[in-house]
Amino acid sequence: MSGFVAAATLDFSALLGHSPAWAVDDASRATKDFQMDREFDVLALGNAIVDVIARAEEDFLVAQGVAKGSMTLIDEAQAERLYAAMGPATIISGGSAANTVVGLASFGGAAAFIGRVKTDPVGDVFAHDIVASGVAFGTPAALDGPATARSFILVTPDGERTMNTYLGACQNLTEAEIDPATVAKAKVTYLEGYLWDPPHAKAAFRKAAKLAHASGREVALTLSDSFCVNRYRDEFIALMRGGEVDLVFANESELKALYETGDFGTALSALRNDVKRAAVTRSEQGAVIIEGNRTVTVPARPIEQLVDATGAGDAFAAGFLFGYTQGMGFEKAGQLGALAASHVIQKIGARPAEPLRGLAQQAGLLA
Amino acid sequence: MSGFVAAATLDFSALLGHSPAWAVDDASRATKDFQMDREFDVLALGNAIVDVIARAEEDFLVAQGVAKGSMTLIDEAQAERLYAAMGPATIISGGSAANTVVGLASFGGAAAFIGRVKTDPVGDVFAHDIVASGVAFGTPAALDGPATARSFILVTPDGERTMNTYLGACQNLTEAEIDPATVAKAKVTYLEGYLWDPPHAKAAFRKAAKLAHASGREVALTLSDSFCVNRYRDEFIALMRGGEVDLVFANESELKALYETGDFGTALSALRNDVKRAAVTRSEQGAVIIEGNRTVTVPARPIEQLVDATGAGDAFAAGFLFGYTQGMGFEKAGQLGALAASHVIQKIGARPAEPLRGLAQQAGLLA
Repeated sequence: MSGFVAAATLDFSALLGHSPAWAVDDASRATKDFQMDREFDVLALGNAIVDVIARAEEDFLVAQGVAKGSMTLIDEAQAERLYAAMGPATIISGGSAANTVVGLASFGGAAAFIGRVKTDPVGDVFAHDIVASGVAFGTPAALDGPATARSFILVTPDGERTMNTYLGACQNLTEAEIDPATVAKAKVTYLEGYLWDPPHAKAAFRKAAKLAHASGREVALTLSDSFCVNRYRDEFIALMRGGEVDLVFANESELKALYETGDFGTALSALRNDVKRAAVTRSEQGAVIIEGNRTVTVPARPIEQLVDATGAGDAFAAGFLFGYTQGMGFEKAGQLGALAASHVIQKIGARPAEPLRGLAQQAGLLA
Repeated sequence: MSGFVAAATLDFSALLGHSPAWAVDDASRATKDFQMDREFDVLALGNAIVDVIARAEEDFLVAQGVAKGSMTLIDEAQAERLYAAMGPATIISGGSAANTVVGLASFGGAAAFIGRVKTDPVGDVFAHDIVASGVAFGTPAALDGPATARSFILVTPDGERTMNTYLGACQNLTEAEIDPATVAKAKVTYLEGYLWDPPHAKAAFRKAAKLAHASGREVALTLSDSFCVNRYRDEFIALMRGGEVDLVFANESELKALYETGDFGTALSALRNDVKRAAVTRSEQGAVIIEGNRTVTVPARPIEQLVDATGAGDAFAAGFLFGYTQGMGFEKAGQLGALAASHVIQKIGARPAEPLRGLAQQAGLLA
């Protein structure tokens, strides 16, 4: 039996320092199967990453040779050096698409996640957190190979985040981890552009997209990061033009990078021609949602203090997808996205610190 | 060569999931020795713990059978069950006395810490964070035995924290880890009452206190927790009356527990007779500092929102000890303590999120 299992099946012994003798696909440990007869609003496919977050001054970024605001891939030796040099850290599960489905579940949506960790303490943390957040997660952890991924995130005093990611076990995500029955049961299959980085994940991405469309479901893509767009521009445009993707999430800099223009209007027009619908975030200028000739704009929500921008886009996608899969229309969906984004950037880490459904109710956006 | 080593000597490989082949007492890895010719304002001796913090409703505490507001010791099996049941967590280094010296260093003080982790990924996190915070830490990690300690902290919506602590490797702290030269160089040796829990740590505590006094230095004790006081009341009173301790930190409920009275004035009078000086915190009522017949009261600082009370007392002690060891007098020292406490309770986790020195300067308490 493969599939999605509940938190109780995760053996804590690995985190306690023992040899990790567990595997989440061990049927004897499964006490509850989320997969059976369950429909999902969103199934996300992404890199399974734990974030290691520290404050850093601008000088430190310069000394470490990392480009501010970017996501840079690093190897194990670079990870060791960076961790030794960086300040005291807060450790919180992350991963872009994983953050989005955790946010969706926090709004009350039905969410599932596919991504690869290893049977090691960090993998245990990732699995605990996503399942404890109410997201169905049952991708078998790799028993060997590289360690579970982590991203070393440096947050400068202006709240901007600079990510340095060791992909590790994410490199073991292949087509084999895509379960057709689960994809068929999700209204939207959500894919992160970062999946173009690990060697086999794009095949998994394509398989999931194909299965979703074969079941009459929708496929969404987030462009992830402007540096990622620069690495895979042609592939991303081909996915949109070929109809493999129905809904695109991007921020302004990613969109401009995609079409290699400094003009937002030009980029937005190009996007309109290439994909059915899209939601583009513009930081404090809010978001623009397009579908054919239709345009809906949503203002950003005011915040008191930008603490850590990590996960702003992931949270917007969570709120938007919750509204979208509940049939709420673009304006309401965009408002829920803006609400979620404003929450996560006022705290450390990309995941919500309190239930987003409650925050949306307080804000009068949900009953 | 024993002693204190810098962050660069900590091998990150354990966190990356390899067999932990490093030891912080391996002389070949030591690049910098904090111990040589360095005076410390405060040397703390305490349990070396990593906190695993999650939001929880009151109902969850009831279901788990834990007493709200307490620190309960749990074994490995209980830790596994609790972690499986609790929500998504934030992982931040903790440990009461460790938090205090991290806070002291954040004010700009010279701090050292003695405490025992194991050579495992969680121990690596603890060691990284305390050294990255500027605290000299060189206690050799245990190569075998129980895993590095962690405390599963449940934060209820009112901001109160309930701690469930697996002591693990802290049980390996013995007299052997107390380096006489380091104790002799610290103005104050700060000891946590929680050290009465692991079997050999009280001997280490007594050895450190004796060495400090033999060098004409001072010894401070925090009573830690009212439940801890109930376990070790007679020993704590004997330490004070026997002159093994010069300065006591307590909160109101610990003080009342110590003297088994519901009346604060009665307890404060008893304390005045038993110890040279003491700082007693009273949450939103501020703090009272006593020395002989002298009494100094310091108001609490207003806060916007109580997010997580974890570490409030530890932070107060950090600010107070910074002022005290700089010769600032009780009022200023108490104000620095109140400032530090107000900062840490408005965020998740017990350690400062930004430099306390800067916050104190903004508040006009330091130049």
